[in-house]
Amino acid sequence: MVEPIDLDEKFGRFFDTWSPKVVARLNDYEIKLVRLDGEFVWHTHPDTDELFLVLDGALTIQLRDDEVHLGPGQLFVVPRGVEHCPRTVSGQVRAMLIEPAGVVNTGDASGALTADHDDSLAQ
Amino acid sequence: MVEPIDLDEKFGRFFDTWSPKVVARLNDYEIKLVRLDGEFVWHTHPDTDELFLVLDGALTIQLRDDEVHLGPGQLFVVPRGVEHCPRTVSGQVRAMLIEPAGVVNTGDASGALTADHDDSLAQ
Repeated sequence: MVEPIDLDEKFGRFFDTWSPKVVARLNDYEIKLVRLDGEFVWHTHPDTDELFLVLDGALTIQLRDDEVHLGPGQLFVVPRGVEHCPRTVSGQVRAMLIEPAGVVNTGDASGALTADHDDSLAQ
Repeated sequence: MVEPIDLDEKFGRFFDTWSPKVVARLNDYEIKLVRLDGEFVWHTHPDTDELFLVLDGALTIQLRDDEVHLGPGQLFVVPRGVEHCPRTVSGQVRAMLIEPAGVVNTGDASGALTADHDDSLAQ
């Protein structure tokens, strides 16, 4: 029997924040899980949209002139080239990200929060 | 304020089964919601992988020599070219599908269950 990918089981295997883990691949896209806590950095992905699906917690995605409030079971696609900065509302957020392989979490920004590509949890 | 896409709200707007509804786009991919009930048809997508994420209910994805059992919060990517047939275990399943735009639900098969492309719920 083939085992499915269980999101809770995968979340039980990492606890660092702002460091997306690849759990599956879909053609040339990656499905990533991430724990978020606090405020990230303003950044842009010039070449791709980026999907956020919140699984637990409350997340605000700040845009330069607006913002999006996401709770469990809500998703938002940040369009390519749109500057954004995720910020948790209170406590940790667990989210799924979907984007093409090779996208770096901090996009055109860089710094301490830039995470290494981590596919150690992918099957 | 930009509104997120609320999966429960979208599911509240359709009740037909085996008829995926596009709710968001990610580059040239589509995020679809679908209600499943009973057994589908055996088919293949020769050119693309297909992601199933179960949100509610219990789903078996039958493969020719194996099967995958999925519950809420579990996902499986059917590799391109792999023949498969989804079957619900008991009662209706609500699932999210992700695949490139233009993929037909019945793949290389056809027949009564082939659904029209429906993006009337997409923003």
